Amino acid sequence: MAELRVHNLAMSLDGYVAGPDQSEADPLGRGAEQLHEWMFASPRHEVDDRFVVAGDEGIGATIMGRNMFGPIRGPWTDEDWRGWWGANPPYHHPVFVLTHHPHDPIEMQGGTTFHFVTDGIESALDRAYGAAGGADVRLGGGASTVQQYLRAGLVDEMHVAVAPILLGAGERPFPEDGELPERYECVEVVQTPAAVHLRFRRYSG
Amino acid sequence: MAELRVHNLAMSLDGYVAGPDQSEADPLGRGAEQLHEWMFASPRHEVDDRFVVAGDEGIGATIMGRNMFGPIRGPWTDEDWRGWWGANPPYHHPVFVLTHHPHDPIEMQGGTTFHFVTDGIESALDRAYGAAGGADVRLGGGASTVQQYLRAGLVDEMHVAVAPILLGAGERPFPEDGELPERYECVEVVQTPAAVHLRFRRYSG
Repeated sequence: MAELRVHNLAMSLDGYVAGPDQSEADPLGRGAEQLHEWMFASPRHEVDDRFVVAGDEGIGATIMGRNMFGPIRGPWTDEDWRGWWGANPPYHHPVFVLTHHPHDPIEMQGGTTFHFVTDGIESALDRAYGAAGGADVRLGGGASTVQQYLRAGLVDEMHVAVAPILLGAGERPFPEDGELPERYECVEVVQTPAAVHLRFRRYSG
Repeated sequence: MAELRVHNLAMSLDGYVAGPDQSEADPLGRGAEQLHEWMFASPRHEVDDRFVVAGDEGIGATIMGRNMFGPIRGPWTDEDWRGWWGANPPYHHPVFVLTHHPHDPIEMQGGTTFHFVTDGIESALDRAYGAAGGADVRLGGGASTVQQYLRAGLVDEMHVAVAPILLGAGERPFPEDGELPERYECVEVVQTPAAVHLRFRRYSG
């Protein structure tokens, strides 16, 4: 059965996956480049690379929050904005963007089409499962989107890459005290020089 | 110069160091025994053991929150309560317990004396540094006590042992968004079969 999976969620030890003061120039917020050092290292450590690659395997659609699509808040004022990724985004499948403001789909090169979903996270997930044609759906982020799906008990697998830093401020993906309805077991822990990877799967035990 | 150090703070990946529903029978709350599996394994892994031992080295006094001393809330109704640890607690030095309710000191066997501090965390730290006679002070916990000292910028070193679990509920030691005034650098990351140890030191860079 198709699953909803989170991959490569880079988190500080104090639980932040993005820093404060996000902007178009600094889309992940202040200090957050440290979160992703393991991902952008050159050469990338082979274990880090294995996790990055695994995040694409078996994925047929992606869901993301609106802030991950772009810096525009409120109504769509810039109709030319087509995401952070240039003409050929690295998705190559349908991407469902959660927003309160309707927007026509945007078809990009390479098989990526951005669809804008205004009627909630369950609807976005239904549409993503439908579009994925039996493959899994990736929950792309950001923090608030991951938190909403965790609170709704809809996440099947979750890979967190802990960066050994304390950010002190930013956005947290884990719900508040008592808001996680599902139970998860850790199925893998691997340390690399720049991160500690932990992979969790939902269980009904 | 003497320092304030946190050691062996066992935390779930979602940031909890104690579970919900604490009681005298279950002082760390529901689910929290999983946090400490690495500590109570028999035999204990040699790396886990090294961290446990390091938590005592060079320590001359301990500070703890009142809930760590006992299950009594509000005024002291049970004057016979002498802590969770029996007649000879494993401190063997002065222990300063933060509380809103005055209590006479309690002298135990083996060099441990519990002192009750009602005038705040800075006062407790001053008294602990004085009592430690130049040695370091350990910040024993629990979650809210660690959080208060982090918020006040008074913690010099912090060792967190991440257990590969998601608790979903409980008490978190890290301050809320934007409340950490100091910067820390990670000086050690070590993985064992049951935990990932991370050690941070404050820096002024």
